[in-house]
Amino acid sequence: MKLYDFPSAPNPRRVKIFAAEKGIDLELVNCDMSKREHKSEEFLKKNPSGKIPVLELDDGRCISESVAICRYLESVEPEPNLFGKDPFELAFIESRNRHIELELWTQIGTSWVNGPIVGSMGIFEQIPAAKLASDKNVNSFYKRLDREFSSSRFVAGDRYTIADITLLSAVDFASRMVDLKPDDELKSLHRWHQEVSSRPSSDN
Amino acid sequence: MKLYDFPSAPNPRRVKIFAAEKGIDLELVNCDMSKREHKSEEFLKKNPSGKIPVLELDDGRCISESVAICRYLESVEPEPNLFGKDPFELAFIESRNRHIELELWTQIGTSWVNGPIVGSMGIFEQIPAAKLASDKNVNSFYKRLDREFSSSRFVAGDRYTIADITLLSAVDFASRMVDLKPDDELKSLHRWHQEVSSRPSSDN
Repeated sequence: MKLYDFPSAPNPRRVKIFAAEKGIDLELVNCDMSKREHKSEEFLKKNPSGKIPVLELDDGRCISESVAICRYLESVEPEPNLFGKDPFELAFIESRNRHIELELWTQIGTSWVNGPIVGSMGIFEQIPAAKLASDKNVNSFYKRLDREFSSSRFVAGDRYTIADITLLSAVDFASRMVDLKPDDELKSLHRWHQEVSSRPSSDN
Repeated sequence: MKLYDFPSAPNPRRVKIFAAEKGIDLELVNCDMSKREHKSEEFLKKNPSGKIPVLELDDGRCISESVAICRYLESVEPEPNLFGKDPFELAFIESRNRHIELELWTQIGTSWVNGPIVGSMGIFEQIPAAKLASDKNVNSFYKRLDREFSSSRFVAGDRYTIADITLLSAVDFASRMVDLKPDDELKSLHRWHQEVSSRPSSDN
């Protein structure tokens, strides 16, 4: 299986961490976003949304969207389980993953596209007021997470799941590329971050 | 099972359509968003994100997020299948559902919170430039869908799935509440809309 990837992109990283946790080897194919290869006519046949990651199976079929790719990998390599083992746990982990995606990732994304790196590319009209609002939302969500981690070891309870991979990738991207590092005073969030970052998979 | 609901809210509608397709009866509990009941301390115990829908099981456990709730319902009532039957189809349908959620729903949401109805509530700082950009993105995505529906009967191929429910709820909400109805010239998108709207479940 080939994974279309770009070194600093956070969503392919989610799949790479997930695959590392499963012990699955993926052949990485560089899709050079700096050259807009993800928007080429050829790539749009693999993913009409023009985004990475994309997983290409050995028969040529393609799957886009990091969570969908991870769910495919969970189907073909069920252990260790990262999505849930029974109907309630499956739904609960998905709900937690979505809280991170829809309430944190979307806000980090708004801060990113309205920040200096994307701004210097001249491909999006910058909306400074949107960045002010999303920066505030990110910091507010970090505080919520800190409260949650004061009584919960991981994002979805007492074991490591895909929701932790989603959050780790979000926090690292926000810290390194968007200048939105969690405040030092958020001790429980940092305790969680240290624990999940110590897993070998996080080196991806 | 109880579903916390509010009549005009689009995300509970997704679950109600899904349950209707399965023939599952849900006890609807009104969560009055106009009184901000979804932000009450009691409700935040059911969903820390303070959003509806929430599914409360008979044992009191709660599931938030419409897609997670639907996946739970699919687990307990597998037929008719709406999420996919094998690893590839499961992943493909999820990817299509996510294209709609992350590229259309998020933009409709931005237009909604920066539009006149939410604006008149005075609970969010309005960013007119953000609405201009999201309106444009919605109309651009409608055009993409129209092209896709010229060769695909449903969102994820040749059968009705959760991705159609997601899109139907999005388009109807955008048309009725956000003044973002698809242009009449988008014939294939309207052909699809007419077909899925004719299903009895869409009356929810």
